Amino acid sequence: MVIVMQASATPEQMRQVLHLVETSGFHAHINDGVERKVVAVLGEVDIDKVELVDRFENLPGVEKVNLISAPFKLSSRQYHPEDYIVRDGNLAIGGNRVCIAAGPCSVESPEQIMESAIAVRAAGASMLRGGAFKPRSSPHSFQGLGEPGLKMLAEAGEETGLPVITEVMDAHDLDLVCRYAQFLQIGARNMQNFTLLRAVGQCGYPVLLKRGPGCRIKDLLMAAEYVLCEGNSRVVLCERGITTFEDAARNTTDINAIPILKELSHLPVFLDPSHSTGEWRWVTPIARAGIAAGADGLIIEVHPNPQAARSDGRQSLKPERFAEMMRQVRAIAEAVGRTV
Amino acid sequence: MVIVMQASATPEQMRQVLHLVETSGFHAHINDGVERKVVAVLGEVDIDKVELVDRFENLPGVEKVNLISAPFKLSSRQYHPEDYIVRDGNLAIGGNRVCIAAGPCSVESPEQIMESAIAVRAAGASMLRGGAFKPRSSPHSFQGLGEPGLKMLAEAGEETGLPVITEVMDAHDLDLVCRYAQFLQIGARNMQNFTLLRAVGQCGYPVLLKRGPGCRIKDLLMAAEYVLCEGNSRVVLCERGITTFEDAARNTTDINAIPILKELSHLPVFLDPSHSTGEWRWVTPIARAGIAAGADGLIIEVHPNPQAARSDGRQSLKPERFAEMMRQVRAIAEAVGRTV
Amino acid sequence: MVIVMQASATPEQMRQVLHLVETSGFHAHINDGVERKVVAVLGEVDIDKVELVDRFENLPGVEKVNLISAPFKLSSRQYHPEDYIVRDGNLAIGGNRVCIAAGPCSVESPEQIMESAIAVRAAGASMLRGGAFKPRSSPHSFQGLGEPGLKMLAEAGEETGLPVITEVMDAHDLDLVCRYAQFLQIGARNMQNFTLLRAVGQCGYPVLLKRGPGCRIKDLLMAAEYVLCEGNSRVVLCERGITTFEDAARNTTDINAIPILKELSHLPVFLDPSHSTGEWRWVTPIARAGIAAGADGLIIEVHPNPQAARSDGRQSLKPERFAEMMRQVRAIAEAVGRTV
Amino acid sequence: MVIVMQASATPEQMRQVLHLVETSGFHAHINDGVERKVVAVLGEVDIDKVELVDRFENLPGVEKVNLISAPFKLSSRQYHPEDYIVRDGNLAIGGNRVCIAAGPCSVESPEQIMESAIAVRAAGASMLRGGAFKPRSSPHSFQGLGEPGLKMLAEAGEETGLPVITEVMDAHDLDLVCRYAQFLQIGARNMQNFTLLRAVGQCGYPVLLKRGPGCRIKDLLMAAEYVLCEGNSRVVLCERGITTFEDAARNTTDINAIPILKELSHLPVFLDPSHSTGEWRWVTPIARAGIAAGADGLIIEVHPNPQAARSDGRQSLKPERFAEMMRQVRAIAEAVGRTV
Repeated sequence: MVIVMQASATPEQMRQVLHLVETSGFHAHINDGVERKVVAVLGEVDIDKVELVDRFENLPGVEKVNLISAPFKLSSRQYHPEDYIVRDGNLAIGGNRVCIAAGPCSVESPEQIMESAIAVRAAGASMLRGGAFKPRSSPHSFQGLGEPGLKMLAEAGEETGLPVITEVMDAHDLDLVCRYAQFLQIGARNMQNFTLLRAVGQCGYPVLLKRGPGCRIKDLLMAAEYVLCEGNSRVVLCERGITTFEDAARNTTDINAIPILKELSHLPVFLDPSHSTGEWRWVTPIARAGIAAGADGLIIEVHPNPQAARSDGRQSLKPERFAEMMRQVRAIAEAVGRTV
Repeated sequence: MVIVMQASATPEQMRQVLHLVETSGFHAHINDGVERKVVAVLGEVDIDKVELVDRFENLPGVEKVNLISAPFKLSSRQYHPEDYIVRDGNLAIGGNRVCIAAGPCSVESPEQIMESAIAVRAAGASMLRGGAFKPRSSPHSFQGLGEPGLKMLAEAGEETGLPVITEVMDAHDLDLVCRYAQFLQIGARNMQNFTLLRAVGQCGYPVLLKRGPGCRIKDLLMAAEYVLCEGNSRVVLCERGITTFEDAARNTTDINAIPILKELSHLPVFLDPSHSTGEWRWVTPIARAGIAAGADGLIIEVHPNPQAARSDGRQSLKPERFAEMMRQVRAIAEAVGRTV
Repeated sequence: MVIVMQASATPEQMRQVLHLVETSGFHAHINDGVERKVVAVLGEVDIDKVELVDRFENLPGVEKVNLISAPFKLSSRQYHPEDYIVRDGNLAIGGNRVCIAAGPCSVESPEQIMESAIAVRAAGASMLRGGAFKPRSSPHSFQGLGEPGLKMLAEAGEETGLPVITEVMDAHDLDLVCRYAQFLQIGARNMQNFTLLRAVGQCGYPVLLKRGPGCRIKDLLMAAEYVLCEGNSRVVLCERGITTFEDAARNTTDINAIPILKELSHLPVFLDPSHSTGEWRWVTPIARAGIAAGADGLIIEVHPNPQAARSDGRQSLKPERFAEMMRQVRAIAEAVGRTV
Repeated sequence: MVIVMQASATPEQMRQVLHLVETSGFHAHINDGVERKVVAVLGEVDIDKVELVDRFENLPGVEKVNLISAPFKLSSRQYHPEDYIVRDGNLAIGGNRVCIAAGPCSVESPEQIMESAIAVRAAGASMLRGGAFKPRSSPHSFQGLGEPGLKMLAEAGEETGLPVITEVMDAHDLDLVCRYAQFLQIGARNMQNFTLLRAVGQCGYPVLLKRGPGCRIKDLLMAAEYVLCEGNSRVVLCERGITTFEDAARNTTDINAIPILKELSHLPVFLDPSHSTGEWRWVTPIARAGIAAGADGLIIEVHPNPQAARSDGRQSLKPERFAEMMRQVRAIAEAVGRTV
């Protein structure tokens, strides 16, 4: 249930609303909208909802009460009708400017990450990606460099002035990762690691939340709800391909998810065409498609020497190919009235 | 196996090659390329292929012999390396100009189809679509107007100067449909109706072949192979969404299929965002994405009054929304160096 | 809508009911149940249904009127509450006895099919399968022997006393196939070939209708509806595996489909574990699972020499392995209170 | 790579083998087989494998060396050819006796769990299930009772003499859960929570590892590999349904996975028909199918009053229906030569 307050509602009227929310057994989340405040009423209470709507609507200062039919509430556009812009430092994701994060799958050495950072910056990227904790299907595969990798990443970010984004795999590592990174990533396999979602929600850092390859769009929004519930509203949703019967590519890019997520939610939406295709030759056309479909940004794997990469080499672009991708993506962005 | 002839090969040398093909138990298909002829050697023969390659390579006039590992041969780019342009009258599909076919799902009345034709033409479409034979999941649903529908469609096409494309559901109806239409469509449910594929291959009309929603990319190319085998090279492939676990949209647009099909095959590729999304609100962004990903054209459902449509109303654009889609698609086409 | 007549309803009362059905713009199908007649009212008419229910309920001889919410009507258990038994000669499918059809994928030679027939009969099969018209993904693969294959199949059937089942791929071939076979099969790729479904509905032969690998359970029931609508009630539904992301087997056996189909429909249900697994080693355990889940029968690929088979060798059982499968299936059938 | 030692190999010969493993940059896992020891050689080392095989084969006491092509090694039958039996107290999973774990989805109250325990025990279950930490898609849904729930579960287990199995959602909770439970469960959403897998591997408790609904069979085996790598060999694999396009049931039971897992791995395999169908009416037939296909056990949701259940009521059996299921499953188990 969402309570839309009148533009003229007083703090006392708001207090009365919150009082009724709590005495009814629910808890409240407040969205300070540009024009008016909106209160989300959350909880699993066995109560006559129609009667409750009535009682709220009769309180002074309340303009109207809407029932939200979707299971996600705080991540719903019904709760937050305007686009939400995730801001951090100079970075703004979800506004007119399309944001490109790029870099290697894994941080492998100081030289590799520095070379990558310089290259992606030169091509116009606004964030540097790189993994130090790698979730791998096999325990026998390279698991990332850990803290030393984070340091190399942070140094490359500082040197180039690019904020860095990196995956956090476990709530234990959160403090450590936050010491080095400006932006967190929750990987596809952890999309329903609810302990991690809550911890990231409490830590308050902006987070890119990747869709699990076997998860529905509404499950992605429910996962975002876990983060939002803890008071962290800076969530970017990321489509990265789903698992289907089609085996010509590593995954199936669910391009429909982009307009659908933009319709259902106010949160910014990224596309990761490197994982959603699994093959560098298809990254650029699908990157173009993502921006054309309305994505607010892209996250792209770039490696100075893909054939020697310790992970995901096949889907990584060489720096010069990334620069060409950026030129093409820029043209598409302009065609849809945006910039890069 | 594909035999690439030397540019200077004589007709007599070609005859010798064809003679060896046939005496070895295979049959040949010849591609008259711009620079040189290529011979595809087809058939299921229990023979030592390495030795046969050797024999062909020793024939005069032969430049080289390639084994094609893919199960599709005539629809493979290995057989026909350059893009193939499907031409019919003034229409050219697969070249620099993006082609848009539009119109209602079903022909319902002379007024409805004429109004649709005038509207889509005004907005810049270059083909008129409309169904007279409708494959419907339920025998209790509207099955199309049959021949009277074809007549209405043909009249609307003539009046507006638009070539018409319509579905043929059965080999029996082929002659009838060919009397009224310039372009055939094989629907998704008939993608593996091999009798129909062969019949369309023999009739020689250009054909839009839609991918079955449960079929892999390579199966679409195998279906095209049935048409090509009968000597009809004018095939346009069409992605129209696949069936996956995601239920937020009617289907999942397999946008990856566009660059993959363009890589594997020389045939032009269309996208049908009306079916691949199932919801008019998502048609325009996915149409933009399709062109951005490299599609050679779109097929779009447009209806003067979607709410009264006898089929697919939910995914049909109103004429004014289609005009807006065309403006946006034109901007994307220009951004990828093409025109509409 | 389904009109349940009173047990005591007179022919005149039935006539009145049918009269109102037709004057309302619908058409009627009558199910002569054991105890009472049931009338299905079919058609797409823009009418106030509640008012119509009222009018039917007020007619003499009518016990009650039920609206059927499912899109399939004649294939629904709401229309035909008791299990339906498909009978042909001595064969009865859907009763207490589990029915096993077995034989090679393709008829290849008189010896091959005769040897197969003798073996499967000895092991306890009650039908002989074998394809003469083969739908193949590739036009370059073996397409079946055609009429000569049908003759060989019919001879093997006569010799062993087994009724034969074979696939019909096209309405054109129906008369030909009916001259040789007792039971028709509609293959998975043709599940939505509506012309073929109607033709088989009119011909009246009993038919095994295979589920398309990308089709939902309700679409299978809609396909059956096409056959039933034409007056042919002898339809056996067949689960043969669906296409999913799991690639360890050729298809995913949708074992849930068996109890679900038995609940939604009165029609008998078969399982084809040869196609649903694609690997002979898994055929026997999945055959056991099918009978345990409540299937009324199995269709199994058996070949005297699988390694030399012209199609589907990998999933074909050798005769001695089929005999072992029969022993195990018999034990399972007895455990669920049935016989083989 | 797997090194099979001769039956007569001495400890000194084994030491030499292990020495070479380590000096080559790998690490070793030893399987004490009934007849002979097998050494798995693990790690990602850039080395000439053919040459290394040669060196191992020339060591005294080595019978043969096999390369394991699968990415899973310790969970592979190539490493451990005989069936592995997971033992704990009197419990033995994977032997001739089929093991049934049953109980409510969530522990809700002392009465509810005690009543469930008494009922499932009376019907022949050999383990009690019940969740105290519930992974829920929505943060607004019931999340389980936590430690008080674990206490209630442990008391019901003690009272009835049934060992208890319960889900652990996070490595943090592992000590707590181990104080109350005899058997751990890793839920489907955590199948690739690698931190949790490693922690459970180190703790040594027996564990039921559920397949993620969007994960392939080989990914399940890779997840098991994480646990086995840490030295915990007591892993039971559990099929619980996968996400596909079919929406008639909550999930698609991948029944093929049962014989496939039994072939690829030596680990015992369970089926969870409650989740794999999502509907109590289909639980019993699919439970029968699972045992018929070769599963070593079942995990079943049973609730004294499903309609009042705080989670999964729709798929929970009432005690009397569970007792009937047990009778039917027992008959199937006997038909495949096993007991319950």
